[in-house]
Amino acid sequence: MRIAVFRKAHFNAAHRLHNPAWSDEKNQAVFGLCNNANYHGHNYELEVKVAGEVDPETGYLMDMKVLKDLIYEEVELPFDHKNLNLDVPEFQHFNPTAEHICYIIWQRLRNRLDPHLDLMVRLYETPRNFVEYPAL
Amino acid sequence: MRIAVFRKAHFNAAHRLHNPAWSDEKNQAVFGLCNNANYHGHNYELEVKVAGEVDPETGYLMDMKVLKDLIYEEVELPFDHKNLNLDVPEFQHFNPTAEHICYIIWQRLRNRLDPHLDLMVRLYETPRNFVEYPAL
Amino acid sequence: MRIAVFRKAHFNAAHRLHNPAWSDEKNQAVFGLCNNANYHGHNYELEVKVAGEVDPETGYLMDMKVLKDLIYEEVELPFDHKNLNLDVPEFQHFNPTAEHICYIIWQRLRNRLDPHLDLMVRLYETPRNFVEYPAL
Amino acid sequence: MRIAVFRKAHFNAAHRLHNPAWSDEKNQAVFGLCNNANYHGHNYELEVKVAGEVDPETGYLMDMKVLKDLIYEEVELPFDHKNLNLDVPEFQHFNPTAEHICYIIWQRLRNRLDPHLDLMVRLYETPRNFVEYPAL
Amino acid sequence: MRIAVFRKAHFNAAHRLHNPAWSDEKNQAVFGLCNNANYHGHNYELEVKVAGEVDPETGYLMDMKVLKDLIYEEVELPFDHKNLNLDVPEFQHFNPTAEHICYIIWQRLRNRLDPHLDLMVRLYETPRNFVEYPAL
Amino acid sequence: MRIAVFRKAHFNAAHRLHNPAWSDEKNQAVFGLCNNANYHGHNYELEVKVAGEVDPETGYLMDMKVLKDLIYEEVELPFDHKNLNLDVPEFQHFNPTAEHICYIIWQRLRNRLDPHLDLMVRLYETPRNFVEYPAL
Repeated sequence: MRIAVFRKAHFNAAHRLHNPAWSDEKNQAVFGLCNNANYHGHNYELEVKVAGEVDPETGYLMDMKVLKDLIYEEVELPFDHKNLNLDVPEFQHFNPTAEHICYIIWQRLRNRLDPHLDLMVRLYETPRNFVEYPAL
Repeated sequence: MRIAVFRKAHFNAAHRLHNPAWSDEKNQAVFGLCNNANYHGHNYELEVKVAGEVDPETGYLMDMKVLKDLIYEEVELPFDHKNLNLDVPEFQHFNPTAEHICYIIWQRLRNRLDPHLDLMVRLYETPRNFVEYPAL
Repeated sequence: MRIAVFRKAHFNAAHRLHNPAWSDEKNQAVFGLCNNANYHGHNYELEVKVAGEVDPETGYLMDMKVLKDLIYEEVELPFDHKNLNLDVPEFQHFNPTAEHICYIIWQRLRNRLDPHLDLMVRLYETPRNFVEYPAL
Repeated sequence: MRIAVFRKAHFNAAHRLHNPAWSDEKNQAVFGLCNNANYHGHNYELEVKVAGEVDPETGYLMDMKVLKDLIYEEVELPFDHKNLNLDVPEFQHFNPTAEHICYIIWQRLRNRLDPHLDLMVRLYETPRNFVEYPAL
Repeated sequence: MRIAVFRKAHFNAAHRLHNPAWSDEKNQAVFGLCNNANYHGHNYELEVKVAGEVDPETGYLMDMKVLKDLIYEEVELPFDHKNLNLDVPEFQHFNPTAEHICYIIWQRLRNRLDPHLDLMVRLYETPRNFVEYPAL
Repeated sequence: MRIAVFRKAHFNAAHRLHNPAWSDEKNQAVFGLCNNANYHGHNYELEVKVAGEVDPETGYLMDMKVLKDLIYEEVELPFDHKNLNLDVPEFQHFNPTAEHICYIIWQRLRNRLDPHLDLMVRLYETPRNFVEYPAL
């Protein structure tokens, strides 16, 4: 019985989009308001999907408390109430677009998850803009 | 023109997670608060997806009223305002985890649906925890 | 600067509506499906409103972490994953309608809150049915 | 790094379901209230998914402002505050069911989008009924 | 124990804003897209609030099934899948703005409700625009 | 016919809670994670309520497009994709708690609104924390 389970979480963070290889003019032209040198921020909403076989003894794909704690350690603790560009190592040289944040979260969770399980991450930057990795 | 249609529904039910093959201690250790012998409950939100070819005469994949009535007969009537463990035959010997409830709903609807149509069921146990069967 | 702050919380519980002074027939006639002797359940969503003067030093009406912890102690811990009729003392002789649950939550929080602050509680039994105490 | 980005939009429109090849009786029997000759209407909520490779220079799959403007030109401007049957050319001879509206929106966006990108459109006719094209 | 209960409902309707005492130019200038002679439409979401004393025997302010049926008879049946301007008597000579629709719904429900109960109606024309009658 | 109309808007901003009259230790003790010197951020959701008499000629309390433009000029343009502490004059010497941001928005809108109309502002800092000014 192959099934998928989903768990939601959230974190509130500041960020700024900027490519240091470009001039200020080009950064401004490409990233617009998102390039503000003083940062802006979001309530990021996260949806983690894990797929695999249900354990017939528990009726669980995996214990959701374990998944919740994993998301807390790998995402909420390091990202919540932080400046992504300044406080999170991965984004010191990697532009924190929604696409990149989603990919980094996927990597962090992938490293901690049983290799028999599939993983997909959806990240809402706003209720109107969101991303998913990997894409179907 | 292969398309998917979705219909939402909901039911409010009590349940308890318990494996009768285990000791009380192991049940408590694995299922925690969900093992409460007096039951707890949820507003389950259901999302039924049906995929197939659009009928060129109606412009419908299928009449949503038919799908709504099917969900009413197979899910809302037997599950709403019920104790899943005590009142629903399938869960008298099958632990009503979100994964198992989702699978049983899929089975009940699959039996009633035209075999040319594909079926997927998503079940929200809370706004933060949900499952999908079959998994992509 | 008189302002109101709101904090949301939630708990998942089983309950049953029943008046022991009535016959089974009358209970069934008045409460219908909600009278199921085996219980049913809900994801209760709670919205706590506190009103008063902003502290000019902090810019807070009150520290939301304090309010969050108060709701945890007085509502989430005693109500979450419980059977309201069997596990919560107040409802052993007080029918757990949404109206009564809302009133009991208000009482529990009122006892713990600074008397200079006003308190209002809104309780969603489902996304379509909710109550508010006290009423404006 | 293959990823998907999503953008939401909305439009408010009147429509009527009707097959001119059928008698009034058959139209009424098949489409029921949706066949009302005086029209009814909806707040359509649109979710556009675009998938492909992230550009390593920008960290974007595509500029969401470009996608937002494309949706404005191809969907919001021609559909919002309109009567789909009377004001939108495609539906003058094509029944505006949710399935067909979704397909037409996909066609309009597909024509304007880089062919290396994949496109999927989800359309909510109400919060309880929605469709997706193409279906997975 | 004075409390308020709320019940949600919805209806999907077409409408057009128009003042027949004005020229077409003035109607267009004031109502813009909402003046489209071919109509447009909305999924109206309704929130009905009733306030009063809880009945100590039932623990109910009023039976929510009675309120649900009243909303069905007075609002859903006459308004759902209708053209408000053409199909609803009150709007044949009364411009169906959100304000006016809200007021008419309040009147229809007020006539049917126990005079000891207070009534307030909130109507969402879209998720971003809504009205409340009477105003606090 | 006294009625209230509501309009929603949103802005994404960075901020930091800090009282310059206090030591770093006290700021950290009182504001916790919200005191991060590198800022964090939110998707602020705004709900503006205006109450008064309906104009019998238009059926409007006020033209919602006028209210939308006012919110754009006074809130979205100066606050969106900004650092509230650094980029918004009012918060250079006024701690940008949700309470204070709500009050400043109320002031900015109050100055622009017809004095016969009443105004109330609700501001969501997250979906779980929000404030309202003035409090009922």
